[in-house]
Amino acid sequence: MSLLPGERVDVLASRNIKIIQSSAVFSFSLDAVLLANFAQVKRHSRVVDLAAGNGAVGLFLARDTDQQVTMVELQPRLADMAKRSVALNQLQNVTVQVGDLADATQMVAKDSVDIVTCNPPYFKVSSQSITNPNDHLALARHELTTDFATVARVSADLLKYQGKAFYVHRPERLAELLTTLTVVGLAPKRLQFIHPREDREANMVLIEAIKAGRPNGIRIMPPLIVHEADGTYSSSVRRLLNGD
Amino acid sequence: MSLLPGERVDVLASRNIKIIQSSAVFSFSLDAVLLANFAQVKRHSRVVDLAAGNGAVGLFLARDTDQQVTMVELQPRLADMAKRSVALNQLQNVTVQVGDLADATQMVAKDSVDIVTCNPPYFKVSSQSITNPNDHLALARHELTTDFATVARVSADLLKYQGKAFYVHRPERLAELLTTLTVVGLAPKRLQFIHPREDREANMVLIEAIKAGRPNGIRIMPPLIVHEADGTYSSSVRRLLNGD
Repeated sequence: MSLLPGERVDVLASRNIKIIQSSAVFSFSLDAVLLANFAQVKRHSRVVDLAAGNGAVGLFLARDTDQQVTMVELQPRLADMAKRSVALNQLQNVTVQVGDLADATQMVAKDSVDIVTCNPPYFKVSSQSITNPNDHLALARHELTTDFATVARVSADLLKYQGKAFYVHRPERLAELLTTLTVVGLAPKRLQFIHPREDREANMVLIEAIKAGRPNGIRIMPPLIVHEADGTYSSSVRRLLNGD
Repeated sequence: MSLLPGERVDVLASRNIKIIQSSAVFSFSLDAVLLANFAQVKRHSRVVDLAAGNGAVGLFLARDTDQQVTMVELQPRLADMAKRSVALNQLQNVTVQVGDLADATQMVAKDSVDIVTCNPPYFKVSSQSITNPNDHLALARHELTTDFATVARVSADLLKYQGKAFYVHRPERLAELLTTLTVVGLAPKRLQFIHPREDREANMVLIEAIKAGRPNGIRIMPPLIVHEADGTYSSSVRRLLNGD
């Protein structure tokens, strides 16, 4: 297993997973750790991670299940990093598919998946958008090649009846996200808001939705606070990162 | 000013407001205090409170503005309590209208109001609903005589361009609440979730929406925690109740 120029290997200690990173191309952030923790993967869950990037979410989840985890990533450069990380961790149950997530039902059978996860591009593209001049990062952050409506529709197509989708996204789009999920038949079920500090507004939201779930059953989980007042990580986040 | 059988006078110390209460008929709860605090009433705000009950929200807000505060309440028994509380506090700028909030634009001119507040009935009526055998309480808690779609439509009708609506409601209905507001032209703008303790799910949500506001601008305020781990009120809630 060889690293390309600019690449490094980071470790998520809490899950004992090594992951190939590159700050020039793509590095996972706390979002992926939080999403993997929020997703309730069970021993026999068949999992698909859409817009997988360098594979962080799928890698973190892989040992929770004895079934297949399929990562779908459009950018060959990132998919290649993910494949090498899968090998580095000797994970036998993870495959990486290079392609557009809109075509995911050509890679994985419809109605066959227990859990879909996605840490999608957060920002809408508009004339005012300042997209990142680095193409890899721009595609990961802005809805240039996909959008949440596509992510939601594909999730609903892949999931079994009562299967679950888990997303991390930006709270300013909350109304649109909930509407979009409802329209494709995914009932929003649990939300958790992430606040940088206890006295700050949320900057992320974790969303669980159930295929063919009943409406009007949203639960708002206890808030997750990232930093203490002194700027150090909170005990909850330290546990997610370091396992202690 | 005379009290009817079963009535008592409570005081909200933080706002120095006396309020006639009756546990048999209706008593305000923390919801009303939180809503009055969340509503950003300015010195010259024209205010309407819908489904006013015994007048708690309107009484708590009345001294924040030099303009008129109109309470709309369907039940004459509750409206009478509100009127006597207005007199008890010698508030000159508060009027109580007895009638269905669906007819509020016959009491207050359309497009004339800066702020609408509402602490509406929380629960949908269904065949499984256990409505309170006490009629006054049943009407306050269940959507027997009004529903959120009506509250939202009437709010939008009453408000000026860029006027603000403030609601307290139950988080399990969040998706429906946001959709309903968006449909009537009220853009959800700020949400605050209320948690009984920091490690418990939210049991209330405060919502601010702006008439003709832009979409996708929701801000999630820092969570409000009601009780400390030992069961006493948190310092934030003590301040809202006692002013200290």
